[in-house]
Amino acid sequence: MNDAGAGVAGSNATVSARISPAGGLDILSRHEVARLRGASDSGLHALLRRCALAVLTSGAISDDPRAILEQYPDFDIQVLQQDRGIKIELTKAPAQAFVDGQIIRGINELLVAVVRDIVYVSTQLEQIGGDLEPSDALTQVVFEILRNARILKPFIDPNLVVCWGGHSISREEYDYTKAVGYQLGLRGMDICTGCGPGAMKGPMKGATIAHAKQRRRNNRYIGITEPGIIAAESPNPIVNQLVIMPDIEKRLEAFVRMGHGIIVFPGGVGTAEEILYLLGILLHPDNAGAPFPLILTGPKQSAPYFEQIDKFLRLVLGDTVAQHYQIIVDDPTAVAKAMAKGIDKVRNNRLDTKDAFFFNWALRIPLEFQTPFRPTHEAMRGLQLRHGRPLHDLAADLRRAFSGIVAGNVKEEGVQAIEQNGPFDIDGDRDIMQALDKLLRAFVEQHRMKLPGGAAYVPCYRVITG
Amino acid sequence: MNDAGAGVAGSNATVSARISPAGGLDILSRHEVARLRGASDSGLHALLRRCALAVLTSGAISDDPRAILEQYPDFDIQVLQQDRGIKIELTKAPAQAFVDGQIIRGINELLVAVVRDIVYVSTQLEQIGGDLEPSDALTQVVFEILRNARILKPFIDPNLVVCWGGHSISREEYDYTKAVGYQLGLRGMDICTGCGPGAMKGPMKGATIAHAKQRRRNNRYIGITEPGIIAAESPNPIVNQLVIMPDIEKRLEAFVRMGHGIIVFPGGVGTAEEILYLLGILLHPDNAGAPFPLILTGPKQSAPYFEQIDKFLRLVLGDTVAQHYQIIVDDPTAVAKAMAKGIDKVRNNRLDTKDAFFFNWALRIPLEFQTPFRPTHEAMRGLQLRHGRPLHDLAADLRRAFSGIVAGNVKEEGVQAIEQNGPFDIDGDRDIMQALDKLLRAFVEQHRMKLPGGAAYVPCYRVITG
Amino acid sequence: MNDAGAGVAGSNATVSARISPAGGLDILSRHEVARLRGASDSGLHALLRRCALAVLTSGAISDDPRAILEQYPDFDIQVLQQDRGIKIELTKAPAQAFVDGQIIRGINELLVAVVRDIVYVSTQLEQIGGDLEPSDALTQVVFEILRNARILKPFIDPNLVVCWGGHSISREEYDYTKAVGYQLGLRGMDICTGCGPGAMKGPMKGATIAHAKQRRRNNRYIGITEPGIIAAESPNPIVNQLVIMPDIEKRLEAFVRMGHGIIVFPGGVGTAEEILYLLGILLHPDNAGAPFPLILTGPKQSAPYFEQIDKFLRLVLGDTVAQHYQIIVDDPTAVAKAMAKGIDKVRNNRLDTKDAFFFNWALRIPLEFQTPFRPTHEAMRGLQLRHGRPLHDLAADLRRAFSGIVAGNVKEEGVQAIEQNGPFDIDGDRDIMQALDKLLRAFVEQHRMKLPGGAAYVPCYRVITG
Amino acid sequence: MNDAGAGVAGSNATVSARISPAGGLDILSRHEVARLRGASDSGLHALLRRCALAVLTSGAISDDPRAILEQYPDFDIQVLQQDRGIKIELTKAPAQAFVDGQIIRGINELLVAVVRDIVYVSTQLEQIGGDLEPSDALTQVVFEILRNARILKPFIDPNLVVCWGGHSISREEYDYTKAVGYQLGLRGMDICTGCGPGAMKGPMKGATIAHAKQRRRNNRYIGITEPGIIAAESPNPIVNQLVIMPDIEKRLEAFVRMGHGIIVFPGGVGTAEEILYLLGILLHPDNAGAPFPLILTGPKQSAPYFEQIDKFLRLVLGDTVAQHYQIIVDDPTAVAKAMAKGIDKVRNNRLDTKDAFFFNWALRIPLEFQTPFRPTHEAMRGLQLRHGRPLHDLAADLRRAFSGIVAGNVKEEGVQAIEQNGPFDIDGDRDIMQALDKLLRAFVEQHRMKLPGGAAYVPCYRVITG
Repeated sequence: MNDAGAGVAGSNATVSARISPAGGLDILSRHEVARLRGASDSGLHALLRRCALAVLTSGAISDDPRAILEQYPDFDIQVLQQDRGIKIELTKAPAQAFVDGQIIRGINELLVAVVRDIVYVSTQLEQIGGDLEPSDALTQVVFEILRNARILKPFIDPNLVVCWGGHSISREEYDYTKAVGYQLGLRGMDICTGCGPGAMKGPMKGATIAHAKQRRRNNRYIGITEPGIIAAESPNPIVNQLVIMPDIEKRLEAFVRMGHGIIVFPGGVGTAEEILYLLGILLHPDNAGAPFPLILTGPKQSAPYFEQIDKFLRLVLGDTVAQHYQIIVDDPTAVAKAMAKGIDKVRNNRLDTKDAFFFNWALRIPLEFQTPFRPTHEAMRGLQLRHGRPLHDLAADLRRAFSGIVAGNVKEEGVQAIEQNGPFDIDGDRDIMQALDKLLRAFVEQHRMKLPGGAAYVPCYRVITG
Repeated sequence: MNDAGAGVAGSNATVSARISPAGGLDILSRHEVARLRGASDSGLHALLRRCALAVLTSGAISDDPRAILEQYPDFDIQVLQQDRGIKIELTKAPAQAFVDGQIIRGINELLVAVVRDIVYVSTQLEQIGGDLEPSDALTQVVFEILRNARILKPFIDPNLVVCWGGHSISREEYDYTKAVGYQLGLRGMDICTGCGPGAMKGPMKGATIAHAKQRRRNNRYIGITEPGIIAAESPNPIVNQLVIMPDIEKRLEAFVRMGHGIIVFPGGVGTAEEILYLLGILLHPDNAGAPFPLILTGPKQSAPYFEQIDKFLRLVLGDTVAQHYQIIVDDPTAVAKAMAKGIDKVRNNRLDTKDAFFFNWALRIPLEFQTPFRPTHEAMRGLQLRHGRPLHDLAADLRRAFSGIVAGNVKEEGVQAIEQNGPFDIDGDRDIMQALDKLLRAFVEQHRMKLPGGAAYVPCYRVITG
Repeated sequence: MNDAGAGVAGSNATVSARISPAGGLDILSRHEVARLRGASDSGLHALLRRCALAVLTSGAISDDPRAILEQYPDFDIQVLQQDRGIKIELTKAPAQAFVDGQIIRGINELLVAVVRDIVYVSTQLEQIGGDLEPSDALTQVVFEILRNARILKPFIDPNLVVCWGGHSISREEYDYTKAVGYQLGLRGMDICTGCGPGAMKGPMKGATIAHAKQRRRNNRYIGITEPGIIAAESPNPIVNQLVIMPDIEKRLEAFVRMGHGIIVFPGGVGTAEEILYLLGILLHPDNAGAPFPLILTGPKQSAPYFEQIDKFLRLVLGDTVAQHYQIIVDDPTAVAKAMAKGIDKVRNNRLDTKDAFFFNWALRIPLEFQTPFRPTHEAMRGLQLRHGRPLHDLAADLRRAFSGIVAGNVKEEGVQAIEQNGPFDIDGDRDIMQALDKLLRAFVEQHRMKLPGGAAYVPCYRVITG
Repeated sequence: MNDAGAGVAGSNATVSARISPAGGLDILSRHEVARLRGASDSGLHALLRRCALAVLTSGAISDDPRAILEQYPDFDIQVLQQDRGIKIELTKAPAQAFVDGQIIRGINELLVAVVRDIVYVSTQLEQIGGDLEPSDALTQVVFEILRNARILKPFIDPNLVVCWGGHSISREEYDYTKAVGYQLGLRGMDICTGCGPGAMKGPMKGATIAHAKQRRRNNRYIGITEPGIIAAESPNPIVNQLVIMPDIEKRLEAFVRMGHGIIVFPGGVGTAEEILYLLGILLHPDNAGAPFPLILTGPKQSAPYFEQIDKFLRLVLGDTVAQHYQIIVDDPTAVAKAMAKGIDKVRNNRLDTKDAFFFNWALRIPLEFQTPFRPTHEAMRGLQLRHGRPLHDLAADLRRAFSGIVAGNVKEEGVQAIEQNGPFDIDGDRDIMQALDKLLRAFVEQHRMKLPGGAAYVPCYRVITG
């Protein structure tokens, strides 16, 4: 760090500083440095600024991405070129990211991840996988982004647990996620989440304490996010490896290719989307028999939530779907033990099939789960939520339905579409529609559709129940 | 670990297990192993059992040492001999120290510290310093215990902050200690405390988070305790280096020889004892000019507490005493910056005087601060709390007065003495007595004399105010 | 390693084994693995086999690349695909590379370097630098190969000394190179050479002993080679980082971009080529003032050698050329001290210009030094060895002249051309021609033109002296 | 290092410098520092000076300890006291130990070992083992010196091979010891020797190259010496852990307690002493069945040497003695494989008996092998070299006979005794005497009794053959 100047903008203290990036960008060619610098000037600049601000306010909680941008209206970021590397110039950055004018090391690392991923994706990605099948090419992209982020580690036994769940959950539910993380950490597992607050922070926090008690080092607290949500769910301060995937679908693929097991805590539509995504894949005939531990769990108070989910899934996808998950209520130790046992099977399977530990190549992810879904009114109407289709196809469309609702609730593009054209229509077989309607209503009642500012929820969808 | 059997004794789950000690006892001769084993059979056994139980319940909070022993009445510990080392056999030990039958690594380490210190002190100490002056010999003992515990590290820049304060403080005060620890941790400082709850845990917890954010490794969270209090103040789970000094005075000497600065948070008589101990030393003419940052701090609500302390100290020891400390109210960042500045002076002074960084040899600790004080009624009556004495002598007796009250409040021997013979009489110059009386009353009113079980406080002393 | 079978082929013991590659190829995608495997099947196979055999006979000395291939006629290498990575299958490989059926770890690493570089160059290189100026694009290629080989290290102070000189030198000269390496090693310098025997091995051997005495770890013994010479100059066993550049010119560029200083020991035409290459660059006006320590040194017996070189250079390129080098005779300590001093200037210059320590971006290498030179009779005749040209252009053609003679002496293509069409004609200004002729004759007299088998040297060139 | 001044004393360049000790003396109390300083003033000073000079000339070879002292007549060493540690002041020390005024790191470490061991032994040893049986007490002393030297390492699998043999051997024999060391090193074994030249250096040198090829780090090249021979056999430069035992017997005990197997190369009477020492112990009934690999090996030329030894041992101690060793001629690979196999048995035995890996507690070393033997004429005459005694007792006296001859040949005290009183008389059963005479004559003929200066050998003993 060279120069740092402190200022106060509105009520928010700021610091301006020139940062030497910490790790990850240290062996660049002169041309790569020029490209990085160019990127910060170009069309990527708005994206870079938004994501950088998110990590600089790491730990702050706000459902409303615009709020943070408004708090630091004069914030700016530039990548400067020097022959021997780059500097990152921050102007009027949130003071909370600094100590005595020095940027906090962990935040510096997250900032480097932002620059790395945004520029890498924009400049390198087009070259990848040109000669591959479309699905293979998309997987290759996911792989290359993760490898470039140095997140794939060889020689580590399977131990990475992905935790999904809401970012806005009750105190009891949050404490429960911590307790589960603690039990996972005691058993030597690492944590990967979407890297925001709530169910994405609790397990990391619990694991941190357990890892310290076990004197474990080299712990991994991996956050996988994407540009559309990083601002709303700024990385919690425990995340020590951050990667920004270009879209939701690649983020989801990263979770299932890297994770050796998945725990789902209570959440809202976003969590439902994640469940459907994973079940859709596991239901694909090519994946029959592939071990993949999936545990749905929460404290006693959340029992009804999982009963509803379970009922919905069985009704829509048939009872056999329940073979793919396990529901455990109010027992963090049992969750951790079940996960350890499940991961043991994954380990043996990888050894048997000579597959890598760090990336699940064997899992077949059909193209419809990889292709980005743009939730227009037309696309939402076009979903085929009907019995009789292959289960993984039906699950794919259900996943899209939930994805659309998430967008209509909180994403800029979706919110505008709803404002202009009214709620999305979702249609399909009557029993499915009724079940969906019931589930979504339950989410609303349980305040799992909480919105910025806390206003009463007005649905962005209309389920055509008959 | 070989065998582990789980059981339930009363309401408390227990585990029996044979433990391989983690670190610290790994290169022993056959004869040392025999000696360790002998110790666990001998008169040390009760002490060993009591201290072992304290670390096995690490993190549990109870003011009442007897309570824990009653919870695990069948707990036992034996050191077993094997040619290539030792095993520790635990019977009916608290289950909370284990995960799936395996002892938690950090607790294993604390257990090793207990065995090491108790046996080392009992078998090696008589040989130390035979040919030295009494005061030098006692310092040598402190040094050897710390070195044997591998707590002295060469080549580390001064950065060890000792935090003192009550183990039973208000939520605001506790949160404040965390905030101070966080600011210290952001600035790369390590923490040393008495290793119980409250003001001894908060700074470590705050520093842990800050160290993680700064990606700092090799953090030291040092707990220094003694057999009389370890049971009441069992090491909090963050402590990663534990040492059990044989008595209060050696524990206090360890703090001031190892610490590069001291922060005092609100507390009760024990904290007052610590303040008097340190000021008594700093007031000694031989120590004039020695840099030793001492900061008294607390949240806004605690301001009156430090005003009282300050008033008392100035009245009894004269206004010049206030040169030795700084009072900062409600400003964790200012505390951390002042400490960093003070430690910088310590560093320069050590370089100038070619003194070690890891042990403050230059500080003169007079024999009366090193000699154990047994608080009998006679000894308490004999204290000379009068003006006109050298300030460090007066401070030494004041320290003893507070020490006696601590014993009368909570230590087994002291409590029994009070039960038999009524409260201690404390006499001296009238203004000192009045000031002391006022201070102690304030402690009672502020609930800083909290007792096990929460009963109303009945003073164990009588200040003869004239 | 899975299976190993020992055999005896002719007089040479062999082992067949399946190898798990050590480092460097550990995070590959399924598609990259397939590509590697494909490469070993394709047109690259002969190259791969030849280079692999060179590292498997690491330490063996032979001037004649064909000899080794003839010794192990049934040797073969295949890259096998496994989902989680690759295996290298060796058939009838030289037994000297194995211990009890296990491949020696260091040789495994060199083997991985061979696979990595040959395949990387063949599959990735076409994508590099498409949008850059030709000269920049070639530099970018050099950079990417070195980075991919993980040879560029940030955060290391300049300390890399490149040593050039003959692979076939006298015992006195060899011992002298060891003594210089020892003095460099005592002063914390790392060594980079062409990785064969003679002057390429001695400095590494000397440095190894010095590094051990200084208890230095993380030593770098870098070998930079190219497919045309690796077989003739198989990596000596001390090399712990090997990179195979695609041609002579990129190898030379790698030397001058990575090295912080260069020492030239006695050698033959190849060494003369290297000297001309470097002086040509340093004489370019754009590089005026750039610090680049260049020391010519040898034992007392070699003094005439450097006198001849010096005389030749001054005559052809003018006396000012001598500003760029320093000749030190028979004083290893003086060499090491002068190099340390020179590198200190390099370090300050890099700091001033904010250039990287690990790659000399600032040095201008004109395109004519980067473009591969194919030494046909026509090309040799076309060289413009005349006064009046810019010095760096003249030096470039002189470099090519020596390069052609090397090829005519030992490289397959060159030898065949000579056999068919007689010696190369080299023409130019008369004084240059006479000086060149004299220099080349001296090389012959001093047995610096030694050929495989030790036959009397028959020149492959004819200098048109008038 | 503070000040360094260079000088030239006679023909030998010298340097005066003040050294900061490297490692091993870093956490000392003020009183320990004072004691160290005192030691360098006291009666230990001559010993300290002699040993320090030996390590400062590390790598120089001279049979004559007095020669080195005469080369550096003004050399002096003082230990200086500073509160934070010690400095070592060297005056007119051999320049070869320095680079540009800085002491070579490895030599600094050896110097620290000298100070540490000489002072430790003189000041701490009397306190050890007072309450133990005499034999146990002596073993405890050996253990404490090794532990204090930090040479005992837990958690390392048995892999330490002790190599014995002459310091003055033929070129073929020396190269053979290198080849054996190379094969041991390829198989991951560490080396421990008497740390001088010849058979004590070769195996380390070979292992160094093999360890580098296997990319093995944390290699141990342990030298165990004693004050009487360190000057004659100054530590070779590869030794990275040095310990100076107080006498021959403790040095021998250190070898057999630490080593997991022993290789004997050709040597002279000293080597014969070592063989008898070990066989005497292995023949003790308490050690029956204890695995202890012992291999006698040399190149083809040395075959007669081992035949003579073998014949002598069988004649004197009976044919069963040959069960305890294996003779391998001219096959380094076979030696390394046999050693690896033998150590495997040692490992299993230690696991079975729960004995430490780093110290062989189980081996019974009778008191007569531990008690220092002073070779007076009377003591030599008193040896009972007769059949009918327990074999280990007879071996003990044979060991003493060889020990006396070594002293008479090269040790100051012994040489003087011979000068005054003529050769030692050695008497015993006739066949033993004849065998002994024959063996000693063979040593003379094979030039294994080489003396300083190379004069013809005049025996210092007279074998009474009847």
